[in-house]
Amino acid sequence: MKAIIITIGNEILIGQIVDTNSAFIAKELNKNGITVHRILSVGDNRYEIINSLDEAGDDINLVILTGGLGPTADDVTKPALAEYFDTKISFHVGAFEYVKCFFEKRNHIISERNRKQAELPENCTFIPNKSGTASGMWFEKNGKVFVSLPGVPFEMTEMLTESVIPLLRERFILPQIIHYTIITAGIPESQMADRIESWESALPGHICFAYLPSPGILRLRLSAYGTDKKILKGEVEKWVSMLEELISDAIIGYGEDTMETIIADVMRKHNASLAIAESCTGGHISKMITSVAGSSEYFRGSIVAYSNDIKIKTLGVNSEDIIKYGAVSEVVVKQMAEGALEKFQAKYAIATSGIAGPGGGTPEKPVGTVWIAVASKQKTIARIYHLGDNRERNIIRGSVTALALLRSFILDKI
Amino acid sequence: MKAIIITIGNEILIGQIVDTNSAFIAKELNKNGITVHRILSVGDNRYEIINSLDEAGDDINLVILTGGLGPTADDVTKPALAEYFDTKISFHVGAFEYVKCFFEKRNHIISERNRKQAELPENCTFIPNKSGTASGMWFEKNGKVFVSLPGVPFEMTEMLTESVIPLLRERFILPQIIHYTIITAGIPESQMADRIESWESALPGHICFAYLPSPGILRLRLSAYGTDKKILKGEVEKWVSMLEELISDAIIGYGEDTMETIIADVMRKHNASLAIAESCTGGHISKMITSVAGSSEYFRGSIVAYSNDIKIKTLGVNSEDIIKYGAVSEVVVKQMAEGALEKFQAKYAIATSGIAGPGGGTPEKPVGTVWIAVASKQKTIARIYHLGDNRERNIIRGSVTALALLRSFILDKI
Repeated sequence: MKAIIITIGNEILIGQIVDTNSAFIAKELNKNGITVHRILSVGDNRYEIINSLDEAGDDINLVILTGGLGPTADDVTKPALAEYFDTKISFHVGAFEYVKCFFEKRNHIISERNRKQAELPENCTFIPNKSGTASGMWFEKNGKVFVSLPGVPFEMTEMLTESVIPLLRERFILPQIIHYTIITAGIPESQMADRIESWESALPGHICFAYLPSPGILRLRLSAYGTDKKILKGEVEKWVSMLEELISDAIIGYGEDTMETIIADVMRKHNASLAIAESCTGGHISKMITSVAGSSEYFRGSIVAYSNDIKIKTLGVNSEDIIKYGAVSEVVVKQMAEGALEKFQAKYAIATSGIAGPGGGTPEKPVGTVWIAVASKQKTIARIYHLGDNRERNIIRGSVTALALLRSFILDKI
Repeated sequence: MKAIIITIGNEILIGQIVDTNSAFIAKELNKNGITVHRILSVGDNRYEIINSLDEAGDDINLVILTGGLGPTADDVTKPALAEYFDTKISFHVGAFEYVKCFFEKRNHIISERNRKQAELPENCTFIPNKSGTASGMWFEKNGKVFVSLPGVPFEMTEMLTESVIPLLRERFILPQIIHYTIITAGIPESQMADRIESWESALPGHICFAYLPSPGILRLRLSAYGTDKKILKGEVEKWVSMLEELISDAIIGYGEDTMETIIADVMRKHNASLAIAESCTGGHISKMITSVAGSSEYFRGSIVAYSNDIKIKTLGVNSEDIIKYGAVSEVVVKQMAEGALEKFQAKYAIATSGIAGPGGGTPEKPVGTVWIAVASKQKTIARIYHLGDNRERNIIRGSVTALALLRSFILDKI
C-alpha cells in the first residue's frame, strides 16, 4: 500500500508558511501501515494540480491532497478535481448542512462565499468538517483513492483521523509496519554511530535504522516491514533490547515522548513540583512545560527575570554577587534556582542565565555561554554549557538541556 | 528562472520531522527572483533521488537538494549524485580542510566516518560548510544547475545565503518578483474578502493576491511579476495604497513583521517597558517577546502564575476575589496585570487567565474562555475571548490576542 501526499498553495512555494500538514498525514498513514512514497507541494494552479494527479504511478493506491479549498478566490482545488474526475460542481445538501450548522453555532450569517463552499464535484463522497466550512472529498479512479482535505491544519487533522483513516481501513487490507524510537541525550550522532556500529550493520534487510537529531536530543528509530505483526514485534523487541544494552546511559525516553512529556512523567512518578527562574531562555522552558495538558499538577510557576534588578528583587539574588561575578555566573544562577525554589515552595527548581545572542557577548563569556542550575532543599548544582551563536537555537538548546539536567538530578544520576 | 526543491530523508516521509528547509529555500529563491515550481520530498533511496532529478523538466533551471549527507550509514545522497552525474567519489583536499578545522576548533579527533565526509563526486564544485562536516556540492548538466546541501537547518541556511545565492546571481540573469505583505488583525478571512472584493477583482493578471491566515492574524500578500523592478514597484505601491484605504483599521504591520517584532517597534517608539503575568498562556507570551534580539531593552520580566496561591503570593491578587469570582475572571486578571505592573515597575503590563484545555472547563466557563488585561498607571482594561477547544491553539491565539490588545492600548485605539 503506497501513498503520495500533495499539498497545494502558493504560500508554500514562496516559503511564507511551513507545510506541517504533510508531516502529520505521513505519520498517520505510516502508523496504519501505508508507506508514503513521496510528498509534493504545488501552487494554486489548476494545470499543476491536475499534472501532479496524473503523475501518480500505477503502484500508488492512495493520493491525499490538502489546501486550496478556502472561501477566497485564490482557491482552485475544486475546479481542478472536477476537471480531473470529469464531472461538474453542484450544490451538496449534506455539505450545506455542516456549513449552516457551523455558522449557526457562532451566530454568524452565511455569506454567498460560504454557501459556495457547499458546492462539490458530483462524483465525490462528502467528508464532513466539524471545525470549518471547507468539505473534504473522496474520489476513486483506476483503482486509486483520492482524498482532498482543507489546508487549515486543525480541520485537516481532525478529518483525517476521524473520517479518512477509518474509511481507508475499511477499503484496503493494510500491511504491517512497526516503528520503534529510542530517545537519547548526551551523545552526539557520530559518537553514537561509532558505539553501535556492529549492532547496526548486523540488522536484517527488512529492519531500517535512522538517526534523527534535534537540538539537545538524538532519536534512534527502527522500522520493520512485514506481514505478521506479532512476528515483527518480536523481532523488533529483540533488536531494541540489544541496542538498549549498548546505550543504556543515554536513553531518556521512547516513542512519541518529548522532553516535556518525559519531565511530566518524572514529576508525576516522584510526586514532585517544579519552579523555574529563566533569564536567557526567556520563558521558553515554562512554555515547554505548560504545553503538556495537566502540567498544573506539578508546575508551580516561573519568573522570567530579564534584568538584574528583577533578579535581585523577585528572586533574592545578592546584588553584590551580580557586580562581582556577573549575571551569567555559577553563583548567580544557583541563587536564582534557590530563590525560585523558595518563592514558589516547590520541590525542585531550575534556573538559566546566559547570553543568547546576537549581542551581549564578551571574550570571557561569548554568545552561547549558558549557566544552568537545578536546586532542591538538599542541594543545588550548576553546569556551564557552550552552545552556538544563533539566538533561537541557543534558547531551544538551553531549554532542552536544562530539562535534561533536571531529569538527571531527580533520578540521582548527577 | 524556475527552480525545484528536493528534500531527502525517510524521516520526512514517515512524518517524524517537519521539513522546514524547503520553506526557507523557497523564500530565499523568491526574494532573488527565482520562482519555485514545486517542492518534492523523497526517501533515503538512491533510485528515488535519481528519479526525482530526472523528472526536472526542460523549463527548470535550478534544482536544490537537501539532506542525506550526514556521517551515518542511512545517508545516500552522494552515491546517487555520483551516479546521476556519471562520476566517481574521491577525497577532496579543500573539503577536508574544512572538516579538519571544524574538529580542531572543538578539540575533537576526526573519526574515519568524518574523514569520509570529505570525499566528494569528482565533477562537483565544493561549497564550504563552516558550521558542520557535510560539504555542499554544485553541479551543472544540460544547462541546469544542481546544488546539494546538508539537511541540518542552520548549516543549510548559512550555506545557501552566504555561498549559493551569490553564486546564482553570478551565473544567471534573474527576473524580478516583488512581494508585498500587509499584516492585519481583528477581521476574519471571509469578512475581509467581502470588504475588498471589488479591489481584488480589479487587480491586473501579473499581480497575484493571497490570504494567509494564522492564529489571531491575517496576512494579505500581493506578488507582482515582471522585468523592470522600478515599474513593478510603482504598480504594487499603487494597489497597496488603495488596499490600505479600505482596511486601515485592521493593519498592524507589514512584510516580515511578526506580532513579536510589531510589539518591539511599538515599545521602542514609546520608550515603554513591559511586564507580563501569565496563567493560561504558560510562558508563551514571554517566549514570543524574548525571541526578538534586544528585547531586554523593553522587557522587564514576567511571572507565570499557574496556581492560585502563586497568583496571591507573587502578584498580590486578593484571595477573596479568587474565591468569589474564580481565577478566570475580570477582577482577577486585572489584579494580575496591576500586580505585574507594580512588581516589575513597568510602564505597561499584560495578564492572561483562562482555560486552555483539554480539562478544567465548566458550563459557565468552557474550555477556550480567556480573560486578558492590559494595565498602565492610568488605567486597566480587560476583555473576554472565546477561543476554541484545542490547548495548543488556545495558548497561541491567547498570546497573539494579548499582544494585539497591548498594541491597541498603547496606541490609544481602545
